[in-house]
Amino acid sequence: MANATEKNPAFVLRSVKNVAFEDRPIPQLRDAYDVRVHIRQTGICGSDVHYWQRGRIGDFVLKSPIILGHESAGIVVEVGTAVKNVKVGDRVAIEPGVPCRRCDHCRSGVYNLCADTVFAATPPWDGTLAKYYIVASDYVYPIPDHMTMEEGALVEPTAVAVQICKVADLKAGQTVLVMGCGPIGVMCQAVAKAYGAKKVVGIDVVQSRLDFAKTFGADDVYLPPRAENSADPIEHSEKTAELLKEKFDLGQGPDIVLECTGAEACIQTGIFAARKGGTYVQAGMGKENVTFPITTACIRGLIIKGSIRYTAGCYPAAVDLVASGRIDVERLITNRYNFERAEEAFELVKAAQPDIFKVIIAGVE
Amino acid sequence: MANATEKNPAFVLRSVKNVAFEDRPIPQLRDAYDVRVHIRQTGICGSDVHYWQRGRIGDFVLKSPIILGHESAGIVVEVGTAVKNVKVGDRVAIEPGVPCRRCDHCRSGVYNLCADTVFAATPPWDGTLAKYYIVASDYVYPIPDHMTMEEGALVEPTAVAVQICKVADLKAGQTVLVMGCGPIGVMCQAVAKAYGAKKVVGIDVVQSRLDFAKTFGADDVYLPPRAENSADPIEHSEKTAELLKEKFDLGQGPDIVLECTGAEACIQTGIFAARKGGTYVQAGMGKENVTFPITTACIRGLIIKGSIRYTAGCYPAAVDLVASGRIDVERLITNRYNFERAEEAFELVKAAQPDIFKVIIAGVE
Amino acid sequence: MANATEKNPAFVLRSVKNVAFEDRPIPQLRDAYDVRVHIRQTGICGSDVHYWQRGRIGDFVLKSPIILGHESAGIVVEVGTAVKNVKVGDRVAIEPGVPCRRCDHCRSGVYNLCADTVFAATPPWDGTLAKYYIVASDYVYPIPDHMTMEEGALVEPTAVAVQICKVADLKAGQTVLVMGCGPIGVMCQAVAKAYGAKKVVGIDVVQSRLDFAKTFGADDVYLPPRAENSADPIEHSEKTAELLKEKFDLGQGPDIVLECTGAEACIQTGIFAARKGGTYVQAGMGKENVTFPITTACIRGLIIKGSIRYTAGCYPAAVDLVASGRIDVERLITNRYNFERAEEAFELVKAAQPDIFKVIIAGVE
Amino acid sequence: MANATEKNPAFVLRSVKNVAFEDRPIPQLRDAYDVRVHIRQTGICGSDVHYWQRGRIGDFVLKSPIILGHESAGIVVEVGTAVKNVKVGDRVAIEPGVPCRRCDHCRSGVYNLCADTVFAATPPWDGTLAKYYIVASDYVYPIPDHMTMEEGALVEPTAVAVQICKVADLKAGQTVLVMGCGPIGVMCQAVAKAYGAKKVVGIDVVQSRLDFAKTFGADDVYLPPRAENSADPIEHSEKTAELLKEKFDLGQGPDIVLECTGAEACIQTGIFAARKGGTYVQAGMGKENVTFPITTACIRGLIIKGSIRYTAGCYPAAVDLVASGRIDVERLITNRYNFERAEEAFELVKAAQPDIFKVIIAGVE
Repeated sequence: MANATEKNPAFVLRSVKNVAFEDRPIPQLRDAYDVRVHIRQTGICGSDVHYWQRGRIGDFVLKSPIILGHESAGIVVEVGTAVKNVKVGDRVAIEPGVPCRRCDHCRSGVYNLCADTVFAATPPWDGTLAKYYIVASDYVYPIPDHMTMEEGALVEPTAVAVQICKVADLKAGQTVLVMGCGPIGVMCQAVAKAYGAKKVVGIDVVQSRLDFAKTFGADDVYLPPRAENSADPIEHSEKTAELLKEKFDLGQGPDIVLECTGAEACIQTGIFAARKGGTYVQAGMGKENVTFPITTACIRGLIIKGSIRYTAGCYPAAVDLVASGRIDVERLITNRYNFERAEEAFELVKAAQPDIFKVIIAGVE
Repeated sequence: MANATEKNPAFVLRSVKNVAFEDRPIPQLRDAYDVRVHIRQTGICGSDVHYWQRGRIGDFVLKSPIILGHESAGIVVEVGTAVKNVKVGDRVAIEPGVPCRRCDHCRSGVYNLCADTVFAATPPWDGTLAKYYIVASDYVYPIPDHMTMEEGALVEPTAVAVQICKVADLKAGQTVLVMGCGPIGVMCQAVAKAYGAKKVVGIDVVQSRLDFAKTFGADDVYLPPRAENSADPIEHSEKTAELLKEKFDLGQGPDIVLECTGAEACIQTGIFAARKGGTYVQAGMGKENVTFPITTACIRGLIIKGSIRYTAGCYPAAVDLVASGRIDVERLITNRYNFERAEEAFELVKAAQPDIFKVIIAGVE
Repeated sequence: MANATEKNPAFVLRSVKNVAFEDRPIPQLRDAYDVRVHIRQTGICGSDVHYWQRGRIGDFVLKSPIILGHESAGIVVEVGTAVKNVKVGDRVAIEPGVPCRRCDHCRSGVYNLCADTVFAATPPWDGTLAKYYIVASDYVYPIPDHMTMEEGALVEPTAVAVQICKVADLKAGQTVLVMGCGPIGVMCQAVAKAYGAKKVVGIDVVQSRLDFAKTFGADDVYLPPRAENSADPIEHSEKTAELLKEKFDLGQGPDIVLECTGAEACIQTGIFAARKGGTYVQAGMGKENVTFPITTACIRGLIIKGSIRYTAGCYPAAVDLVASGRIDVERLITNRYNFERAEEAFELVKAAQPDIFKVIIAGVE
Repeated sequence: MANATEKNPAFVLRSVKNVAFEDRPIPQLRDAYDVRVHIRQTGICGSDVHYWQRGRIGDFVLKSPIILGHESAGIVVEVGTAVKNVKVGDRVAIEPGVPCRRCDHCRSGVYNLCADTVFAATPPWDGTLAKYYIVASDYVYPIPDHMTMEEGALVEPTAVAVQICKVADLKAGQTVLVMGCGPIGVMCQAVAKAYGAKKVVGIDVVQSRLDFAKTFGADDVYLPPRAENSADPIEHSEKTAELLKEKFDLGQGPDIVLECTGAEACIQTGIFAARKGGTYVQAGMGKENVTFPITTACIRGLIIKGSIRYTAGCYPAAVDLVASGRIDVERLITNRYNFERAEEAFELVKAAQPDIFKVIIAGVE
């Protein structure tokens, strides 16, 4: 049980562009299956910044204050009476969305589509940037002693990439094109490689990101040519796709395209690049609607799928990839902040400098 | 062997908008697995008219004369020495595309994606609107005595719909929304129903087509409201999708959307309508590129697939659907022509009147 | 809330072969998602009789008294505060197993494999042969007004057959061989037919069951020849399989074999009959271990799968099959008993006369 | 064209246990797609020895002399006019079975099930233990310069293992139990590991094979305890499975079991070991029929599949695994013979000493 005098410092988004530190009550277990985690490290994600700056993503609208943060690891400090998989003292990575368990999606194994998921730092739900966080015990995953808490926090983006590769039904021996070399893009490249992909090519418009990608997971990287002002954008995308296929000896095109930018030109290029019968996964989010080569998708018999959040098995697989050393997630961290400087950390991510990769915030002792 | 003095009258597309009857030589078997079919009935398809009027579809460009027609049935009049599945006198439906059998697509069971397919009436390959047609014996399918030759010819659009439903991985008990109530749309509705779909809703902008669809395969039909001039087109599509779901009690949306028009508004409406995790199949072809709600596709975890031609098993399934009476394809035929009046038949299809469904041309005796 | 003076009569298995009527307390909702159902009709299943006579099935051992019965429908009489899908007065079919919702199986959509399922009348869990039964609201399914309560109870064996066909990945147009024409066998035949199977053949050693099957779902039925005393049993099974394929024009063999008997000869015959690359589903349970043609399974590239209980979607599909009239489950009922005569009903099922199909027990008013 | 005076020395199985060297005519291309390969290295497989000693495997019966051998690599010395993928001088691995390309299996992508496959050294078809071999060009695969011809020959068992893992639908992150540490067993272990398996455990009754497996692909190996004479064999198998799961921390059991022995006890142990809902692949062949725990397979919802030969993509994947150095197949070779000493090589394989792994025969200059 929590000490009645103890505090629970939290980094709260009160309203758009308005954050503050608050002393919240120590959160209580809601049922016998819950655990309370003392948060040790939290990565910042673009969506955190998006809520801070705009107050909404899609149907999720900030109407009352929420604690920010959802990429976290910590130490279990309290367990409900029915909890079996972890005990007090266990170091754990936290899967930040707990679904309703009762809707058709939950019952059929696609709980990432559950409309009633309690997702950290998604309005109206509080996030993990506090001393303590309450979560269902089957959504925390023990990490081995040799994994750091920073690595534990970065299990989250690793799990995002695992889900993207799972949605793609990525199989060993395939060729993979990844649009984007940001944190999720390079994670996808590394996961694809760990899963036996024959060749992984990463695309980005920032050279330094390509350089990093080359050392992280990609076999090859590519800086696509800019379109001339007079060019038809979609024709430019088609030409870029042809250049890509030729340059990287991809034959008819890659077996798999993982789109991790949401940029219109990247979406188009990815569709044009995919081989006949190939699979394209949309994971990046940008403009709501884009000009899209639907006839190409039809004639080539493409499979186009959206990837969102994670499903069963993603977190265990991600923990294993990090714990076994196959993905060195620490290398993504470019900046570290103490909890008290959380707002600075958010400002840095907001600035979106291309060489700032992953910013991480240490928890309160 | 063919009689040397016999003729092979053919309906030939000499150049764009220029057709003529020609006496071609009797075609010869190319190897021991070929058969020669005396064509008895041939349906006209939009693609036939497209080549006639424009000379190209995508990468297929008319450079020299070709015989038109590809939806045919006839009587086997000659078989190669290795042929086992049919014999002279057998009445057969003809699958009009014979793939190379050697590329990766052919070897992996997706021969519809084979780039080297010999496809009837697709440049530079001759079609079936002649007295005789040569085809590989494994691409002709015996039809039972009680099936008419007209029904045999209409196995082709039935097989297109079977493939669309196969691509959709349509399962019994699912709800299905079909965009379009033209020949392929109503075929998809009938196939979906024969395959145990729980509810099939057909959409079209022509009331007479909806009326027919309601009597053919659809459980319900819908004439979507026109967009007001001031409306944002994609917002109108989203509203239409919401209206549809409510009106037909489709809950979160249909499990399956089959797009059989290629119209931009239908594509958008179909994507917005599909349930989370649902499957959308693009089968219609219109504008090459459209404004597309990619973020919706991503967030809802949709599966979007292109369907083209047919794969193994589609023709046998289509013959069975027609032979068993589960799909009464004769009802689609609105106009019948003799071979000599083939050009009139093409003119009629070109006119694209909404109540002209399927036009069929009898073969030369 | 239940009336404090009200009683809850129950048909209890106190120990092996020892049943009695007891007045149990009215069961209470355990959480906000529970409902209380007034049971109206309950079918008897072989497993109920098995527990009665032997006290165990596999790892489930009767150690303390349990209420019997698990195939039930009734009327909702109380709902928890969080329940949305049903209201008091709704007539519902009850899915009798509620899984833990937290294990890997539950989270991945195969909750039928959950080891912690609370399954009606499986020790130590009470069943439905009482006036009232408490169950999670997402495990009750409203049935339309025109469905009888008897039909509602028989949704259970229908759902078993739906799951078997789902495990088989049964697709329209396939040929299906069903070993056994008992209740589950004929249900599988009817579901397969409703799902568009091209041909369904039922096998049984009792002529009257074959006669019924022929009028219910099977296109053809077959009484296999008895083995002569001198015959090698497995050679006899192989010969029977060959006879079957020839007699019913199944070519290389059926696409799908559904084994609903558990009898060794049927298992062997089913494996030998399946076409190369075909799917065989084991649903019947008999001897724990059998002589099995493993080399045939290997060389022919068979897919052999076990089916157990139900997964998400089976109950809705089963309700739809019954409600739409595609499966007339009432025809399976051969005997009806009042609740007070439950033991007689059990005795009748125990006797296992071939023309006793489904025995059903009306609930307490 | 072949030089008319040139000879084609061949190692021929004339009848059971009767082999001889013969000078066969230089084989001729049969059509424009064929190539002629000068064989450089050929591995010996158990099936070669089986035909030699017993004259039959299943339905394939030796009725007239055949050339032995089917695991080969060589140099292309002649190509048909339609060949595009290779040219004279290319070093290639040969896929030894060319299917009919016309049956339902071929057309649906499971050409390994084609009954009319021309398979090297399977009666009545000649094998590759000759100077020259004729094969369809799409069944030879160029190997890079840095791969040896020995490695090229061992692409065959690698491809067998790739197919087994493909049949298992093996995914990265899974746990895999491999029954048997012979050549195919250790290949499966190495392929599974290259494909991202989390843990691979190999079982064998020979310690030296386990020692090798541990250095080749397996994370762990296990020598199962012998059954006491008084033990019930299948109970012993079940106990062994439980021991295995506990010893290797496999929780409920491995996700995947690959059976590469055909031994009855291994089959039983593999079934008992597999986790609920897990996949078991039968690849080994031994006794035709075995005592099999069918009820366990049913209740646990297992997926049991047979694997035979290879399908599209297996050879390219196998070439890539060897060429990239992920599988060092040379390490499997324990004995090398010149062509003239082929019979000695066969005698050695026949002796079946546990430390003889792969025996390979150099081709005729």
